[in-house]
Amino acid sequence: MTFDDLLRKKRYGGELQKEEIDFFIDRLTADALPDYKVSAFLMAVCLQGMTDRETADLTEAMANSGNTLDLSLFGDQTVDKHSTGGVGDKTTLIVAPIAACAGCKIAKMSGRGLGDTGGTIDKLEAIPGFSVEPAKDEFLRQVEDVGIAVVSQSGELAPADKKLYALRDVTCTVDSIPLIASSIMSKKLAAGARHIVLDVKCGSGAFMKTLPEALELAQTMIEIGSRKGRVVCALVSDMQTPLGSCVGNALEVMEAADVLKGNTTGGALYDVALTLAGLMIASVKQLPYAQGRAKAEQILKSGAAYDKFLAWLQAQGADALVCSHLEALPLSSRCFTLTAGQGGYLAGIRADLAGHLAKQLGAGRENKGDSIDYGAGIRFLASIGEQIAPGHPLAALYTEKPIGDEKLRGLAEDLFIFSEKRPETTSPILQILQ
Amino acid sequence: MTFDDLLRKKRYGGELQKEEIDFFIDRLTADALPDYKVSAFLMAVCLQGMTDRETADLTEAMANSGNTLDLSLFGDQTVDKHSTGGVGDKTTLIVAPIAACAGCKIAKMSGRGLGDTGGTIDKLEAIPGFSVEPAKDEFLRQVEDVGIAVVSQSGELAPADKKLYALRDVTCTVDSIPLIASSIMSKKLAAGARHIVLDVKCGSGAFMKTLPEALELAQTMIEIGSRKGRVVCALVSDMQTPLGSCVGNALEVMEAADVLKGNTTGGALYDVALTLAGLMIASVKQLPYAQGRAKAEQILKSGAAYDKFLAWLQAQGADALVCSHLEALPLSSRCFTLTAGQGGYLAGIRADLAGHLAKQLGAGRENKGDSIDYGAGIRFLASIGEQIAPGHPLAALYTEKPIGDEKLRGLAEDLFIFSEKRPETTSPILQILQ
Repeated sequence: MTFDDLLRKKRYGGELQKEEIDFFIDRLTADALPDYKVSAFLMAVCLQGMTDRETADLTEAMANSGNTLDLSLFGDQTVDKHSTGGVGDKTTLIVAPIAACAGCKIAKMSGRGLGDTGGTIDKLEAIPGFSVEPAKDEFLRQVEDVGIAVVSQSGELAPADKKLYALRDVTCTVDSIPLIASSIMSKKLAAGARHIVLDVKCGSGAFMKTLPEALELAQTMIEIGSRKGRVVCALVSDMQTPLGSCVGNALEVMEAADVLKGNTTGGALYDVALTLAGLMIASVKQLPYAQGRAKAEQILKSGAAYDKFLAWLQAQGADALVCSHLEALPLSSRCFTLTAGQGGYLAGIRADLAGHLAKQLGAGRENKGDSIDYGAGIRFLASIGEQIAPGHPLAALYTEKPIGDEKLRGLAEDLFIFSEKRPETTSPILQILQ
Repeated sequence: MTFDDLLRKKRYGGELQKEEIDFFIDRLTADALPDYKVSAFLMAVCLQGMTDRETADLTEAMANSGNTLDLSLFGDQTVDKHSTGGVGDKTTLIVAPIAACAGCKIAKMSGRGLGDTGGTIDKLEAIPGFSVEPAKDEFLRQVEDVGIAVVSQSGELAPADKKLYALRDVTCTVDSIPLIASSIMSKKLAAGARHIVLDVKCGSGAFMKTLPEALELAQTMIEIGSRKGRVVCALVSDMQTPLGSCVGNALEVMEAADVLKGNTTGGALYDVALTLAGLMIASVKQLPYAQGRAKAEQILKSGAAYDKFLAWLQAQGADALVCSHLEALPLSSRCFTLTAGQGGYLAGIRADLAGHLAKQLGAGRENKGDSIDYGAGIRFLASIGEQIAPGHPLAALYTEKPIGDEKLRGLAEDLFIFSEKRPETTSPILQILQ
């Protein structure tokens, strides 16, 4: 068997056998394939596709290309959650404590942000003292004791995916359902949880622009799970506007704490978080979704989820004083208020532009390894559907960067969409796939 | 404009503009594109195709990536001939003298063989004294005086094609009509002739296995020519069996000389050569094909073509004594006769296996730069359709290599196809496209 045989087969639309895919990933991981052959193969996959069986075998081979986490110690109570990436998405911080209160075990590896804003790990690091790199036995003990541990994803998790992604990123081969699905799911398989709940974002601010695409991606990932012994369910949620009212690391932690305290009982962030927590509980406890959801709401209302959140943060080293005043995390010293130039109903906030603006303010990374200003970001001061008068404050921008007022206003241009009529309110929950 | 823009466009099936294609070839020629991006692009072209306009613009850009030959000095009397590669094809040696006798100017750049057997340049070098690298002004003077000059293609002709081909060869992206057509035609455009006659081979021994594929390739190349100011016509000919009765450099020169002497007036080699010569004369002299063909036959019969052949060889330095005894070029010292194990009608000789065998005997190169044994090769001693008794000689194999008799018989296994019934004789001329 040579890689050229596989390349030829896929170029003519053939289906690769498991042994062929294993050979490919083995050679790739050993750095034994030239990039120009692999990129030609990736383009052939983009244009010829892969069957569900090929995609599942590719995912498994990538998962096994590096370290895998053995969570069998926790039986089938382990659950992981993954979002395909949304601006302002801090749901992990909310759903993990809720699910842990219901007895789920959450041993999560999470990434640093490489897109416009920080990842979950970056958000947690905005909390003074929080450590994202505990030793492995501490990590497992914490899962046992508290029910939650979230650590930084090590470079050794699915290294084949890392190599493929680096090449896809520069050869216009990112956009392929089998490649996206196998990339996400390889890390989930390697991370060891028995149950996996996915939040597939859909809309102008997400990678999947349309509902059919998002559904196809979700179904492909569910299929991979069922072929490889995991229980996977998915929410397809709308990502036209940022999720919640804050974008930026410390700001998002404060917003998540606010939801966990029970101060919010509606809105897109609440809806998405409670749906995900409900799915996690339903999956692990083998309940119908409605019962899982009811359980999640009850846990939140009881205050148990907030206590669990604080216990989790402290288990990972967060300062006790900080934990008692989570509403007052340090923010960037400069605060600039954006005001409405025109009047009308606020019909939308463009998630893609919000993410870009947050990065400019210092909340995200331009390049891997760049440092982040945890205190930078955007707090929206008006809600979708609200009637706005000219001069009304729309958002507070936090930054340490010396960006002039005019430049800031320019960066925020087109961010807000106004309409003359009151816009209809829509739910971010587009579909639930179990 | 960046190369990524072009890559994205082609990945989604878009049509590239001339400026985009020029940009690509410019960057490629300047070694400014990483191979992994180019190979992904080539795979996208294989699977998404190119319009005739894109293909023609790609061809022109590749032609202009290096030196081009200005033959305007000869008005519109210049004609070039190209074959897509066949085993035993020595037609250039026959058609060039015939067309030159009719007043055509043949200033030809030809390649060394990289496939199983030698190219035209290798065949000419089998003639002692023949020089394939005259200076440029000598080359043009010879075209003026004799009507023919055939020289080795310099590395500077269409260097972008050379780079692309090297990458296609190792990324399973050779098989693409736009890429094949532009590769061939870029060198023809750069070589400067106004008229171009193509021989597109079709069948098991050729790259194009079926008639529809061969016709598509021929039509694509004709279209490129007409978009870029050249007059192109094509013969599509059968390549199931080797063309003529000899495969190997010196052997093929002797066979060509024999045809030029008028000793043969039928068979596949005669048919293909006279069709091509007829097309060349018809194109340059603006005659209907039938008149061009009649003129070619008349020139051959008169003996003028053979005299022209000798004048050409001597103009390029061939020894006069050798030229007076072309039937006696040196052959390899060892001659092994293959005989029929079974009886029956000879129904076919597999061109692909014949090419492979000739290479094993020393007539072709394993790697670029390898030396060739000009005297090695195969002379077939039986013709298609002939009734063969067991023990009847089928072919003489010439080699200097120490290959045992059994090994030689093994290499020739499956080369000859026998049938119990007399096979129908078929013409190698499948279609003429003018």
